Amino acid sequence: MKASTNMQIGVFGTGMVGEAIADKLVSLGHEVKMGSRTANNEKAAAWVKSAGARASQGTFADAASFGEILFNCTGGGVSLQVLEQAGDGLRGKVLVDLANPLDFSKGRPPRLSVSNDDSLGEQIQRAHPDVKVVKTLNTVNCDVMVNPAKVSGDHTMFLCGNDEGAKKQVLEILTEWFGWRDVIDLGDITAARALESMLHVWLRLMGALKTVHFNVKVVR
Amino acid sequence: MKASTNMQIGVFGTGMVGEAIADKLVSLGHEVKMGSRTANNEKAAAWVKSAGARASQGTFADAASFGEILFNCTGGGVSLQVLEQAGDGLRGKVLVDLANPLDFSKGRPPRLSVSNDDSLGEQIQRAHPDVKVVKTLNTVNCDVMVNPAKVSGDHTMFLCGNDEGAKKQVLEILTEWFGWRDVIDLGDITAARALESMLHVWLRLMGALKTVHFNVKVVR
Repeated sequence: MKASTNMQIGVFGTGMVGEAIADKLVSLGHEVKMGSRTANNEKAAAWVKSAGARASQGTFADAASFGEILFNCTGGGVSLQVLEQAGDGLRGKVLVDLANPLDFSKGRPPRLSVSNDDSLGEQIQRAHPDVKVVKTLNTVNCDVMVNPAKVSGDHTMFLCGNDEGAKKQVLEILTEWFGWRDVIDLGDITAARALESMLHVWLRLMGALKTVHFNVKVVR
Repeated sequence: MKASTNMQIGVFGTGMVGEAIADKLVSLGHEVKMGSRTANNEKAAAWVKSAGARASQGTFADAASFGEILFNCTGGGVSLQVLEQAGDGLRGKVLVDLANPLDFSKGRPPRLSVSNDDSLGEQIQRAHPDVKVVKTLNTVNCDVMVNPAKVSGDHTMFLCGNDEGAKKQVLEILTEWFGWRDVIDLGDITAARALESMLHVWLRLMGALKTVHFNVKVVR
């Protein structure tokens, strides 16, 4: 699965994260279907228009069926519902989960709607036991996800998941497609608790540093 | 408050963290009283014997009264109880809180007994409104706390708290006494949620890296 290989990829979500991921994948030569609640979503249509011939749109189920690999770029608050709508197209596939279970209902900075003993990554894995969920990329801003050089110097990306083969594939996507140089495997999907809880410090750092273009390097 | 100034400091806790902090402070020329539940605690007695003339021991209340600055190096599960025992000696003082609310009752890696919407740092501040609580150092192993050079290269320490003067004092301790070069102020004591939640990723990293001598550098 090299960057030169033309793949079909499904991206769930039409927000900033979905657009950043979808744009990057199209620019690498892949065919991308952006999934949303309705097949004629306006944001997805605008994206298809700007992204060109390799871009298409459809429902979550359309994107799931289309993709050989799938990216969950929806808000954490709706991810479980979205993936339920995606349906049978998910089966057996690698799902890269970028979502954070942010809950703004009690003000800012947001709390997490699930944390400590559980995580959204685990909830998704439990709801779809035959999907190979790999949690990654949720710890940086979307510009940095697909362009680590946006933050100068060396810095670290994390991943976790239960399926070793799926993690190897996602590691290749991170390094060969997106340009990450330092990726640490934190173990099985329960480590999504760690990745998602990093949002607490990420949000405080955003406040302290007045930028979203930062990351952490694990120095060892 | 320069490293050359001789101060009286109270350290709560006789474990690895308490000993590392107390040793460092004595080596810098300060007088340190290690506090524990009983005035004749064996671990504290052994420490006093090895640490020499500037070292003493006593109850938590003795250490609180003795110290111009106080370090909470107790386990997060007992910190509130310890500080209640410390009593009036705490009043008006700077309390450097290093504790993590780790709960091993459901197995390893531990969960946090308080997280997300609240933190141990905040619980301590609420229980002792006239104490100037500054949360810091809880995100690294105790060897690294007092000797950042234990991890090669540049890396980051965080602090937070409600009192600006207290944070300035603790920043001096971190930089001039302990040798930290990059310290980020994450805001008021509610940011203790962020600092304590970093334990989730710290514990997973310990598992992945097979060492406790690592830290993160915030790259920006």
